[in-house]
Amino acid sequence: MEQNIQVKLIKRPVGEPKSSDFEIARTPIPEPGEGQVLIKNLYLSLDPAMRGWMNEGKSYIPPVGLGEVMRALGAGKVVASRNPKFAVGDYVTGTTGVQGYALSDGSDLTKVDPSIAPLPTYLHVLGMTGMTAYFGLLEVGQPKAGETVVVSGAAGAVGSVVGQIAKIKGCRVVGIAGGKDKCDFLVNELGFDAAVDYKAGDLKAALRAACPEGVDVYFDNVGGDILDTVLTRLRLHARIVICGAISQYNNTQPMKGPSNYMSLLVNRARMQGMVVFDYIDKYDQAAREMAGWMAAGKLKHKEHIVEGIETFPERLLMLFHGENFGKLVLKVADDAADKAA
Amino acid sequence: MEQNIQVKLIKRPVGEPKSSDFEIARTPIPEPGEGQVLIKNLYLSLDPAMRGWMNEGKSYIPPVGLGEVMRALGAGKVVASRNPKFAVGDYVTGTTGVQGYALSDGSDLTKVDPSIAPLPTYLHVLGMTGMTAYFGLLEVGQPKAGETVVVSGAAGAVGSVVGQIAKIKGCRVVGIAGGKDKCDFLVNELGFDAAVDYKAGDLKAALRAACPEGVDVYFDNVGGDILDTVLTRLRLHARIVICGAISQYNNTQPMKGPSNYMSLLVNRARMQGMVVFDYIDKYDQAAREMAGWMAAGKLKHKEHIVEGIETFPERLLMLFHGENFGKLVLKVADDAADKAA
Repeated sequence: MEQNIQVKLIKRPVGEPKSSDFEIARTPIPEPGEGQVLIKNLYLSLDPAMRGWMNEGKSYIPPVGLGEVMRALGAGKVVASRNPKFAVGDYVTGTTGVQGYALSDGSDLTKVDPSIAPLPTYLHVLGMTGMTAYFGLLEVGQPKAGETVVVSGAAGAVGSVVGQIAKIKGCRVVGIAGGKDKCDFLVNELGFDAAVDYKAGDLKAALRAACPEGVDVYFDNVGGDILDTVLTRLRLHARIVICGAISQYNNTQPMKGPSNYMSLLVNRARMQGMVVFDYIDKYDQAAREMAGWMAAGKLKHKEHIVEGIETFPERLLMLFHGENFGKLVLKVADDAADKAA
Repeated sequence: MEQNIQVKLIKRPVGEPKSSDFEIARTPIPEPGEGQVLIKNLYLSLDPAMRGWMNEGKSYIPPVGLGEVMRALGAGKVVASRNPKFAVGDYVTGTTGVQGYALSDGSDLTKVDPSIAPLPTYLHVLGMTGMTAYFGLLEVGQPKAGETVVVSGAAGAVGSVVGQIAKIKGCRVVGIAGGKDKCDFLVNELGFDAAVDYKAGDLKAALRAACPEGVDVYFDNVGGDILDTVLTRLRLHARIVICGAISQYNNTQPMKGPSNYMSLLVNRARMQGMVVFDYIDKYDQAAREMAGWMAAGKLKHKEHIVEGIETFPERLLMLFHGENFGKLVLKVADDAADKAA
């Protein structure tokens, strides 16, 4: 008889999360109560932000409690429903958690159509990462045509979308990524104007060569030395979007602050943080625009799909080791309709 | 026969400026050429920003060249003129330099009236420091009535004005300063709602007590640990005005970046740099408003006047040692009219 597999957080990780910070529990598949739906997870989104959710303390969202199923965004199929808004066979995305089956009252679920786009796309361009890129760049970064936009983590889920939207808006776009393959992909496949390989040596010189006139908008996913280096290349009135700091999430030391932050004064620039949830009322409009760009071939997306819910702890580390190439998605189960899409 | 005393920068200081980084030159008092005026300096403004002007490298203003008279804002009297816009006896402010007498083509001079306000006031509330406070707070910080505004270096030239303007705008104002005397002055004389003595111990706890609901606007003059501590107390959508980082200007190590900068993300906050020169077109309007507040008794000002142009190198260090109490002004020469004012 099939069971539910649940990945629970049982320890607060110190530094990189370890397998021993999690417990793989096998439990009965639950029955939906009145108003609830039961979702079979098909894909889970693996995101750098998950590392933050494991920490105690005040943040933009409460931490995952010890002993609780690890929080995750997922895409799945309704397999039982006592909620009139959802029928068996509906496909949905939501905060379904790292588990095979999830119960929901439906309030955080969005119906999606796998005949329009494959399910992983709803966890990427049409999901949280796409929304993060869209609103972070356009609302916080406010790029103008002709400006130079630099994005770090550029071959990752958010970064690759940021760069392409900046191109659509008429900007000169430079991506920072690790390794020649990723850099070639950015320029040759996604149409970035230039890419800088931060693993290849002198980042400052490479950035100067790629942005001879400086940087108008910097979309930062990584923090650390890369943020500090970009600060030295700001133009007047530059905008830095603080979306993440993946280089720092597993620190056991205090985070490295940007020592060149006085460049904000010299260049009358600003550095501003963003959290995608603030834009929830505008997701639909953004998703429609993104879908249009995809249909027109202007917005490409690459998912990096790995398999097996029990492998969650190790797969998540791929993000921090730069081993993913595109949006990292964990496939949890097969689905006929999804396969046909 | 009277000579001109000029304080010239002859070495780029490493860490704190030393007397040996300067040369005190005695030269003939120059004669104005066609279109020029000769100004007798009466007061010079001593500002933390001067430390930055001594460094090589790109900034918001070119560095002072080696062998050149140290740059300074001054208030003085026209003693000879071959420029039709200025007559002997006019009082002016401008970038007159650390010297007894300065030549100018008049382009950077502003006529001032010592019968309306004493000359040092034109180097303070009605001058660059007042303008910095006004535009930094109102244009960059954008405080709203009822919000909590925190300012560091609060008993200093810029900070004391920032706090008072914030009070005028209906904010709750908390000043951070060093020592009980300064803190008492902020609350008892300037009407701040609370003051935090950063020398008294647990800054974080004191800030929490003074700002129980968090910080909406932080006007930073000091950088370093104080900036890092305030970052832990931000409210949603907080604004940090980066005006200076006096704690870091004499570093021989790389500057300490704010390790808590990810609070900008958590709180969707921004940190923005400002340089007062950008607002030059609006100085007149601001000065009129400030003069009105002074006349109404809403905006007090305190100058800390020291004497002797040859003492410039040591006097400047008072700023970095927290030894000034109010706007630090170096008196260079006596003037009868000024005395009468």
